Amino acid sequence: MRREMTALMKSVGVGTLKFSSVVSFRLNRCRGARSFSMLMSPPSKAIVYDQHGSPDSVTRLVNLPPVEVRENDVCVKMIAAPINPSDINRIEGVYPVRPPVPAVGGYEGVGEVYSVGSNVNTLSPGDWVIPSPPSSGMWQTFVVKEESVWHKIDKSCPVEYAATITVNPLTALRMLEDFVALDSAGDSVVQNGATSIVGQCVIQLARLRGISTINIIRDRAGSDEARESLKALGADQVFLESQLNVKNVKSLLGGLPEPALGFNCVGGNAASLVLKFLREGGTMVTYGGMSKKPITVSTTSFIFKDLALKGFWLQKWLSLGKVKECREMIDYLLGLARDGKLKYETELVPFDEFPVALDKALGKAGRQPKQVITF
Amino acid sequence: MRREMTALMKSVGVGTLKFSSVVSFRLNRCRGARSFSMLMSPPSKAIVYDQHGSPDSVTRLVNLPPVEVRENDVCVKMIAAPINPSDINRIEGVYPVRPPVPAVGGYEGVGEVYSVGSNVNTLSPGDWVIPSPPSSGMWQTFVVKEESVWHKIDKSCPVEYAATITVNPLTALRMLEDFVALDSAGDSVVQNGATSIVGQCVIQLARLRGISTINIIRDRAGSDEARESLKALGADQVFLESQLNVKNVKSLLGGLPEPALGFNCVGGNAASLVLKFLREGGTMVTYGGMSKKPITVSTTSFIFKDLALKGFWLQKWLSLGKVKECREMIDYLLGLARDGKLKYETELVPFDEFPVALDKALGKAGRQPKQVITF
Repeated sequence: MRREMTALMKSVGVGTLKFSSVVSFRLNRCRGARSFSMLMSPPSKAIVYDQHGSPDSVTRLVNLPPVEVRENDVCVKMIAAPINPSDINRIEGVYPVRPPVPAVGGYEGVGEVYSVGSNVNTLSPGDWVIPSPPSSGMWQTFVVKEESVWHKIDKSCPVEYAATITVNPLTALRMLEDFVALDSAGDSVVQNGATSIVGQCVIQLARLRGISTINIIRDRAGSDEARESLKALGADQVFLESQLNVKNVKSLLGGLPEPALGFNCVGGNAASLVLKFLREGGTMVTYGGMSKKPITVSTTSFIFKDLALKGFWLQKWLSLGKVKECREMIDYLLGLARDGKLKYETELVPFDEFPVALDKALGKAGRQPKQVITF
Repeated sequence: MRREMTALMKSVGVGTLKFSSVVSFRLNRCRGARSFSMLMSPPSKAIVYDQHGSPDSVTRLVNLPPVEVRENDVCVKMIAAPINPSDINRIEGVYPVRPPVPAVGGYEGVGEVYSVGSNVNTLSPGDWVIPSPPSSGMWQTFVVKEESVWHKIDKSCPVEYAATITVNPLTALRMLEDFVALDSAGDSVVQNGATSIVGQCVIQLARLRGISTINIIRDRAGSDEARESLKALGADQVFLESQLNVKNVKSLLGGLPEPALGFNCVGGNAASLVLKFLREGGTMVTYGGMSKKPITVSTTSFIFKDLALKGFWLQKWLSLGKVKECREMIDYLLGLARDGKLKYETELVPFDEFPVALDKALGKAGRQPKQVITF
């Protein structure tokens, strides 16, 4: 078997990748005695990292040999997959859950069923699927995973949304649902980092529920355009951080109700601004820390203002095994995207240009749309 | 009526207090036409403040004229009342709820029923009562408030506990009950400021439930004795802050379970130590800020460790109108105190020596037992 694998790897040009590495993440699908009529995937091209570190130095494109498509497996020809900040953190090794290296990057995406194992009866070649809950190893041309991993979706949704519908939009949806019972007849939420994809989704999903949003963005070149684009999505108020250097930020609310819920993906002063806007008894949910600064809170905020601070991590929520609930929400979000009710900017980039997309995702070229690799 | 009041005030020696001030907080009980046979309280001696400021400069002892005991009122001859930190904050004007000045200080205490209005049928002269929920104006010899304010208690509990059973012990009890469902078969709580009365009550109330406690105290003279006295109350672990300057505080837990719940009454580094001890998904409740430093939390504590930070303020809980629940808990706590199962140090001080007790309560003489005024 090992000799056979070696031959296959040679034929698909596995040059620079150490043999032992390839074997360790593909050979485990070939264990035990099998007949020679077994179904195999095509060879796959993948973005792999052998060690943790800066993604632009530890990732590279490698050719991987075919793997067996077992009786409960589905082989998917990937169509598109994004580069999310959490993908970068996983490669850097700063994420608490790390797949063992070597590993293929990527955690969500959309693909077309290419072949199915003999026991598979819910999916057929040609179906569009996404891994749901999301699953590792999506940055490659062919992915083989068990039938239960894949969720069949309607083909009417544009690929850039189908590829990105889980990690960011679902975070926005869960955060609106899970912490505070918001009343559509007069509640609002406040958030910093409002130009992020999650931030843009919060604005649109809140608006669909009749919830107003108060949005805080950083002072930087292009902030006027950023404000206008968020307002076009339905943002009720958009403030630069520098505008909020006032004693009573609530005087700026206009007619909006004081928010009962706030979202923080920045930390530092931007988190304090969210806290200042919150009403008595309000909750701030932290889901990111872009400034890399901690959150500082006064004692009186807890005792007399009765604020609560919590965190949200989609991967933890998904680990609770709510597959059915997850997929229903994904279908809801895909429907909104198809109907133009959920929008955010993406840039489709051919797989061969992965390093360019990665540099953009790493922020080397300033603010950029979400980078989505096409295969 | 006004002439009559003036005569009364003269007779009880209201000298230095401005007439208008006295009238404003006593005369409101004399409105409307009444017969001359109305029931009056005895004159009262009280600790009054006319303005907010440092308690040792704005408080003074004044004589107050008798007030009417109306048909639903009960006149109570106070026996004992403590000086709590929140009393000091109220006088300083830094508390969010401020009685209008001039005001009589004090918020809890115990007294004996002296006389009752014609409609009162649950209390009789000689009964021991406490205001429950606690109520303002307890630092005086005679207090007149409606029957509904007073809760009759068993006389078997020592007065120093009866006078102090609400503000601190009830805070400890509610915090153990309200935030995390603790399992007596293997849960623990962690707290800083463990030598405070609330801290001592937490240790004893937790132990009664089979919950272990991890206690953090400040480095200062007498910390060895403080550790031993907390251990005598049932503390499982007592650490000086300086002992916790290690990478992994959990290695110090010995056989104790990682705590699911933490209490913070200090802030700053002492709050961070509580957070370090908490298990994944744990909750820290802030109920004080003795260091006057804010609480600083990392983003990852919220996202990956799933910590929640909340606050507790007894006055807010009491404002929810849970009178029956409050009184049942008070009776439970009084029973524990009577049986020697709930202990903390107090010092009884005669009313005439209020300024001495106040200086001790203000920390001018270092660490002191809880000061309880006797009338």
